[in-house]
Amino acid sequence: MSPQVTPTRGRFITLEGGEGVGKSTNLGFVVDFLRGQGIEVVETREPGGTPRAEAMRQLLLAHGDEPLDSDAELLLVFAARAQHLAGKIRPALERGAWVVSDRFTDATFAYQGGGRGIDAERIALLEQFVQRELAPDLTLLLDMPLEAAEQRLAGRLDRRGEVRDRFEQEQRDFFERVRDAYLARAAADPQRMSVIDASGSLDEVQAQIAQQLRNRTAAWS
Amino acid sequence: MSPQVTPTRGRFITLEGGEGVGKSTNLGFVVDFLRGQGIEVVETREPGGTPRAEAMRQLLLAHGDEPLDSDAELLLVFAARAQHLAGKIRPALERGAWVVSDRFTDATFAYQGGGRGIDAERIALLEQFVQRELAPDLTLLLDMPLEAAEQRLAGRLDRRGEVRDRFEQEQRDFFERVRDAYLARAAADPQRMSVIDASGSLDEVQAQIAQQLRNRTAAWS
Repeated sequence: MSPQVTPTRGRFITLEGGEGVGKSTNLGFVVDFLRGQGIEVVETREPGGTPRAEAMRQLLLAHGDEPLDSDAELLLVFAARAQHLAGKIRPALERGAWVVSDRFTDATFAYQGGGRGIDAERIALLEQFVQRELAPDLTLLLDMPLEAAEQRLAGRLDRRGEVRDRFEQEQRDFFERVRDAYLARAAADPQRMSVIDASGSLDEVQAQIAQQLRNRTAAWS
Repeated sequence: MSPQVTPTRGRFITLEGGEGVGKSTNLGFVVDFLRGQGIEVVETREPGGTPRAEAMRQLLLAHGDEPLDSDAELLLVFAARAQHLAGKIRPALERGAWVVSDRFTDATFAYQGGGRGIDAERIALLEQFVQRELAPDLTLLLDMPLEAAEQRLAGRLDRRGEVRDRFEQEQRDFFERVRDAYLARAAADPQRMSVIDASGSLDEVQAQIAQQLRNRTAAWS
């Protein structure tokens, strides 16, 4: 038998940002950009990414007469993440594919931490519990002022013809805290996180993203 | 205004044991026994106990092509527990009611610890995360040899006309480990946990339970 070749672990890229900043559109751009370089890319999202994790997502987003306890919400987010890691992210990275995810643990620090006021230490404890050594190699934080994001979100909801989910219905000060928490994390970890100004035209935003991807992937190879 | 009287915190009693040991029947007996003494009793179960926690229970018990990761299962159990504590157990205890629950955290040490092989330290970390200082005042562990429990379970499933859930379908060695883990916990914490021999007739079992309840509640008052 010839010796087995262990593939190089793939890279893990996450997109983060609040509601209405254009994550979904730009996720497609990132995936296409990498595929254009011949990279195998697995596209996914949080919470969710596998059938069982998507079922947990539904519990997180669903309205109900009973308020969802903030610790229960946090544990449910990490249950979905453990399932996502085991069922999709780790297997893909191990075979050498790259994973691009719409949100990951920075969103937990922003929404459950900044938004709901849960101590970052409590979130970090669960992060370590579930992820161990695994962290994104690059995180693109799409950032824009709240007014503009709120307009985009309202337009999307009108088109979708749907009511807002448990997070989308939160008040303005909640989203201010989410944005502040995201920006604070980016400032504290500039090696991994790049802030993208998402308030310009799509072309302008994607030019920034392409620039970041070129710089980062060049440094990795 | 007259000074407000803070009610004494109610007592928290849990019933534990594997499949087919008679927990449901004897839970009713415990509840009736306490109510017969004029105590307000809230009867509940885990995983579940509130609408949102019951929805999480469904995810835990449901079959699916995708295996449920053991860390995801554990975190989902504690998410349901956090919701149950916030929505039902803590409010009841705080107003002075007693809570009697069909299973609680000992079941997690038995099923996810003994059964699935998750380190007890990892479970204890989440126990502390979710419960803080709260623990049952008394736990009745219904114990019987596996053969007899398996016969009772098979009879119940026949009557119910249902397929086994994700736990009920486990193999014999899984249930041996669950039983061993339960008995080890009872041996390590005899102050709180009483082992009830559940292999006798219902009258014999309930005589033991009544004896334990009389002894313990006498010591509390």
